[in-house]
Amino acid sequence: MDLTLIKQLAIPSTSKIVLFVADGLGGLPREADGRSEMEVAELPNLDALAARSQCGLIDMVGPGIIPGSGPGHLALFGYDPFTFQIGRGVLEACGIDLELQPGDVASRGNFCTLDEEGRVTDRRAGRITTQTCERLCRQLGQIRVDGAEVIVRPVKEHRFVVMFRGAGLSDALTDSDPQAAGARPLAVKGIGQEAEQTAALVNQFIEQARELLKKEYPANMILLRGFAVPPKLPAFPELLRLRAVAITCYPMYRGLAKLVGMESLPFCADLNEELRTLSANYDHYDFFYVHYKGTDRAGEDGDFDAKVAALEEVDRRIPEFLALHPDVFIVTGDHSTPAVLKTHSWHPVPFLLWSRWSRPSGIGKFTERECALGPSGTMRAVDLTPLAMANAMRFKKFGA
Amino acid sequence: MDLTLIKQLAIPSTSKIVLFVADGLGGLPREADGRSEMEVAELPNLDALAARSQCGLIDMVGPGIIPGSGPGHLALFGYDPFTFQIGRGVLEACGIDLELQPGDVASRGNFCTLDEEGRVTDRRAGRITTQTCERLCRQLGQIRVDGAEVIVRPVKEHRFVVMFRGAGLSDALTDSDPQAAGARPLAVKGIGQEAEQTAALVNQFIEQARELLKKEYPANMILLRGFAVPPKLPAFPELLRLRAVAITCYPMYRGLAKLVGMESLPFCADLNEELRTLSANYDHYDFFYVHYKGTDRAGEDGDFDAKVAALEEVDRRIPEFLALHPDVFIVTGDHSTPAVLKTHSWHPVPFLLWSRWSRPSGIGKFTERECALGPSGTMRAVDLTPLAMANAMRFKKFGA
Repeated sequence: MDLTLIKQLAIPSTSKIVLFVADGLGGLPREADGRSEMEVAELPNLDALAARSQCGLIDMVGPGIIPGSGPGHLALFGYDPFTFQIGRGVLEACGIDLELQPGDVASRGNFCTLDEEGRVTDRRAGRITTQTCERLCRQLGQIRVDGAEVIVRPVKEHRFVVMFRGAGLSDALTDSDPQAAGARPLAVKGIGQEAEQTAALVNQFIEQARELLKKEYPANMILLRGFAVPPKLPAFPELLRLRAVAITCYPMYRGLAKLVGMESLPFCADLNEELRTLSANYDHYDFFYVHYKGTDRAGEDGDFDAKVAALEEVDRRIPEFLALHPDVFIVTGDHSTPAVLKTHSWHPVPFLLWSRWSRPSGIGKFTERECALGPSGTMRAVDLTPLAMANAMRFKKFGA
Repeated sequence: MDLTLIKQLAIPSTSKIVLFVADGLGGLPREADGRSEMEVAELPNLDALAARSQCGLIDMVGPGIIPGSGPGHLALFGYDPFTFQIGRGVLEACGIDLELQPGDVASRGNFCTLDEEGRVTDRRAGRITTQTCERLCRQLGQIRVDGAEVIVRPVKEHRFVVMFRGAGLSDALTDSDPQAAGARPLAVKGIGQEAEQTAALVNQFIEQARELLKKEYPANMILLRGFAVPPKLPAFPELLRLRAVAITCYPMYRGLAKLVGMESLPFCADLNEELRTLSANYDHYDFFYVHYKGTDRAGEDGDFDAKVAALEEVDRRIPEFLALHPDVFIVTGDHSTPAVLKTHSWHPVPFLLWSRWSRPSGIGKFTERECALGPSGTMRAVDLTPLAMANAMRFKKFGA
């Protein structure tokens, strides 16, 4: 649905919506017994809730599209992930909680190794330690260029973020990363005349970095890619006319919520603390986005049993969510991460949406297979937000 | 589907399509036994027909969107309710069978009460009687303004419609209704220069109304909102190459059918008379839109049992529809009106589409839950029309 229409239909209310995102929720059957993580897990609370909820599967982006965390979350928040794309640099900045202002240009950086001819021999500089990365980033942070402030922040191992802040910067820039060993780092080029000044100052930065790092073998050079400005997203709380907040354990997810204009609370150590935070702040907001990482981590590790255990951990806490009596409670994921695939996948993600007014699905178990039989079949993830709004009695009628 | 494509595919035929709209058909489970109105009702004829029909749920507008009668019907007739929006004034005119010509500007009016400072103290003038409304509307009908004919028609209690007819009028006008007590009525403003002349004559009308009504406390002023010209809708009979007619008991639904260019027959008193009218005119048309209000009325009243009774009334008449041997027979609604909600809701609406060529759903009961299991799952309401056309053998192949 059009965001303009959402804004037009939204009415103020005191109702509460809790969106619980179990990262990488959906899975696939393992070979041993043909059952998926959700099918193997004992999920008595989720199963009972699913029977009383609207259930289905959601396509995060589109059939066959493997969503990154960015598009997956944008879709969950109701933003079409094709219309609103988040550049790589901006996503990296989100991932380390580096706040961007409109017009800032962020880029993903790698420390790399150059040979004596200036050719890349290792795009990851032998995966230097994070400590080394931190030290080198402090050095790079000393660099001054004409026309922009430069901020350099370590991520992990060889990875860092560089951010340029200044008037009239453009992100229409080619990468310096040649993406292959044996090649030389490329000069950054402006795509179109407006970006030429930015390209020049980025190249200035790169050349000073080369000078600064020349004795830091194996991390004797940098490669930059994915230059991006923060996307212009209409603010979620204004669109929906509610107070929205993110409760997360990791910067990436808080960063994504901030991009759409949600408020955020201090990082939590675990689901336990997330629940305490939710409860303590329940009166201050109307929309709560709560992120849980365990399911995705286990999936990425290919650890089927750990994913089952993570699901069971979530299940045990469901009564605590319900004890808050949210008007709408949604459990879903931002993409599937089947343990057998060890990575994000294109498979639609199960969801349940409980409200006093949701039609009960009557399904017996909260699994990929049973959700597929739900009345919603496979729907678009962006449609969850309007559904939540309607169920929270936060929408007026469309047309008389 | 694109209307252009529908027109391109439609071929002449002698087949008959009957679209029976049980207003507000879909419901929700009641607390007592977790069963919906359709699940409680004894519907032997509909159940048997559903088993032999294509069944499913339809989203009238989109997930979470609560459809007004206008968008709900437009969707049923195959018109995308986002693309074709019906302004409030036009819908009100439909509701009292006031025929609009292209370019007419209609507006919803309220009689209201002003205090001595000219502030609105009651936006509904204490809900004056319909009789008073009628008398005052006759008075307002005497007003003359420069450049347009003015037609004023009572609706009910404090509500009326005012319609301006003249050359070059625009509906790009702001409301005079401030939507809050304590404020003064607003001057109507043209949005853009082209609307300024219309704004001037509307304000002329309002000021004369103020003068005329000043001793009519509590109805001593009017508020106008929702200025609208009839939407430019491609004519249904030409798109589909058939003769289409509306059989209804209420002006609103006949008005909506007329907006899309259907013919209409005199109002019926009840379903009984609708069936007689259908039968008597069966040879003269190819597409019959038959509207039944009882289901919605009971739902709006929050009267679960009355809605069950209305459904059972419909069920008893199903054999009479079938006795006419329509080539395609559709039973559905324009939106859900669950008795437990007492109002239109966003929940998808059950449908059955019977034809000799429809794939039998095999479902056991015509209910929200069973329809959800049908092969169509939840589809878009606008897709019913092309489906009906195909089942009526009124579509040619697309592409060679």
